[in-house]
Amino acid sequence: MTTGLQLRSRISKAGELELSLTEATFADPAPEQVLVKVEASPINPSDLGLLLGPADMSSAKASGSGAGIKVAAKVPAQALPFIAARLDQAMPVGNEGAGTVIKAGSSEAAQALLGKTVSMIGGGMYAQYRLLKATECQALPPGTTAPEGASWFVNPLTSLGMTETMKREGHKALVHTAAASNLGQMLNKICLEDDIGLVNIVRSTEQAKLLRGIGAKHVIDSTSPNFTDELTQALVDTGATIAFDAIGGGTLASQILTCMELALNKAATQYSRYGSTTHKQVYIYGSLNTAPVELTRNYGSAWGVGGWLLTPFLQKIGRPEQVRLRERVVNSLKTTFASHYTKVVSLAEALDLKNIASYSKRATGEKFLINPNKNS
Amino acid sequence: MTTGLQLRSRISKAGELELSLTEATFADPAPEQVLVKVEASPINPSDLGLLLGPADMSSAKASGSGAGIKVAAKVPAQALPFIAARLDQAMPVGNEGAGTVIKAGSSEAAQALLGKTVSMIGGGMYAQYRLLKATECQALPPGTTAPEGASWFVNPLTSLGMTETMKREGHKALVHTAAASNLGQMLNKICLEDDIGLVNIVRSTEQAKLLRGIGAKHVIDSTSPNFTDELTQALVDTGATIAFDAIGGGTLASQILTCMELALNKAATQYSRYGSTTHKQVYIYGSLNTAPVELTRNYGSAWGVGGWLLTPFLQKIGRPEQVRLRERVVNSLKTTFASHYTKVVSLAEALDLKNIASYSKRATGEKFLINPNKNS
Repeated sequence: MTTGLQLRSRISKAGELELSLTEATFADPAPEQVLVKVEASPINPSDLGLLLGPADMSSAKASGSGAGIKVAAKVPAQALPFIAARLDQAMPVGNEGAGTVIKAGSSEAAQALLGKTVSMIGGGMYAQYRLLKATECQALPPGTTAPEGASWFVNPLTSLGMTETMKREGHKALVHTAAASNLGQMLNKICLEDDIGLVNIVRSTEQAKLLRGIGAKHVIDSTSPNFTDELTQALVDTGATIAFDAIGGGTLASQILTCMELALNKAATQYSRYGSTTHKQVYIYGSLNTAPVELTRNYGSAWGVGGWLLTPFLQKIGRPEQVRLRERVVNSLKTTFASHYTKVVSLAEALDLKNIASYSKRATGEKFLINPNKNS
Repeated sequence: MTTGLQLRSRISKAGELELSLTEATFADPAPEQVLVKVEASPINPSDLGLLLGPADMSSAKASGSGAGIKVAAKVPAQALPFIAARLDQAMPVGNEGAGTVIKAGSSEAAQALLGKTVSMIGGGMYAQYRLLKATECQALPPGTTAPEGASWFVNPLTSLGMTETMKREGHKALVHTAAASNLGQMLNKICLEDDIGLVNIVRSTEQAKLLRGIGAKHVIDSTSPNFTDELTQALVDTGATIAFDAIGGGTLASQILTCMELALNKAATQYSRYGSTTHKQVYIYGSLNTAPVELTRNYGSAWGVGGWLLTPFLQKIGRPEQVRLRERVVNSLKTTFASHYTKVVSLAEALDLKNIASYSKRATGEKFLINPNKNS
């Protein structure tokens, strides 16, 4: 038995979010399990949904300090029915991480990992220890550190999931928004390696410069007065008919579909009364803008907009394909799949209101790493 | 050679819509073809896109009379790039119709139709004659008239396409909006025959009463103060996770997805941080409201919204399935697939400004039938 701190997020039926650290107990590993000392776990946008839920963080108050720190915030009553199944439960948080295997079960797969630095997936990583199946770990190549291996799953597999989805759904090139993000930079490197056409949409000249600096060929700035024309031309040049959108709210998804339709019509030789018959798809995988999505529908009937998430994608492709993608990732954690962090914090520091205000902005280029075994 | 009047719609590069009647020449049938004297062809919402295009009909002006009638209206300049491939071409209009085969090619299939009353699909039906392939015709059972057989394709196969799509995409019940329409009434009859759960959304108590009168079990009035609760309960009762929406603009599509999520969460036993993992789908097949679609996205990530159209659906299912569905339709044109018309007009009357104002409203319950061989 091992004990250690674990971060928990609880939303009460009365509509109060409480974040706290708890002293958790970790059993000794079963035959197929390992116990990992967690040394690095990123705060991804995809973690914030569970960590903060729909709470109004402008109402957040902190109390206590060190391991006794607590954060409380109000959750609007109308949001509660959507999270009925989590109410009054103290949920562990943290999708992915990396650390050192300190105990291993009797199975060959578990024993093979003992003493190794491994990457992990499966939730509950904002904790000093994590007990999990050996198959949820991936041994890192010699010389790759836990901080380098912490963000091995969510961003790398999401960006690989985009190019895989593109191929499986019959498209030949893709569009990506908020493209200067950590994930967007990975996607550029993948597309360069795999010779896939990629149209990057960014929101500033600095972001455009950053992407051109890593070799991006098509970078469109949505603040340009000629945005629509420039995007349409890039779509003509690449033939992209699928987009992955991290922004969500507002008119961007619809503008992309409109420009795809314009690009297809430029090549059309015969009038189709219902618009182009080529299917145009936007998958929304993020919510940087939480306002409603507005679809103007001036792009015929062959279009779709939908949610996209890594987990159902991985379920769809099955275990052998998952392993192929995982191995591609861990072998390139210092290059294609490298992540960069602006701040490394302890568990208690992760609950500091200033830090929460900073990482909950989901700003491009700002990324926190938790080291649960860091002293604070 | 046969000559007869044909209605044409032309949009010029300068942005002017012109509707007119032209004296067209119809060649004698090739071996696989027949020449049909058109006796009935409906004006469906799906015909208006080609007939009127994106023209501003408040600017419409008429001139001439009888076969010399002409209608002109302005098309906004920003709409022209979307219809580049039709500009400066005088397009024949009218998706479907029925009439009498007056000449037939030498093939067995064509000869078998000579003298028969047939239903037709393929465009250009707003004309006194139509030359087309025998396979684009379907002989009507004895005693079924041309007006009864005119609306055999668009509404009947669209409503059958909805229940077929529901089954093919793994859903067990469906939602329909603007449900008191001609098509919506057909869909109710199909669902009663085939024992499929159907949630009807209407916009008035009169429409609700109409549908209950033909046996509809779940009818929700979107003007009710308890609309959301009532819709959610009907979704719990039926398990519907796919909707076909004729309205398009506004918040209805998003409200349906929200209520589907609430219905699924009522049954959930475990919290899923990204919302229900059951895919929720809304297909938009009409545009009664041309405002943007607004999606609030409080329904997790397993959702999709997209265009839906009969033709790509029929291409997907292939010819043998198409024939099975066609035969089901023509055998029930007086019952399940009966259409009702508020006015029968000649070709010239179809271009009367008052009539255009009436049928371009796309109002539920108002439906025009053109008889191109009617004197006016």
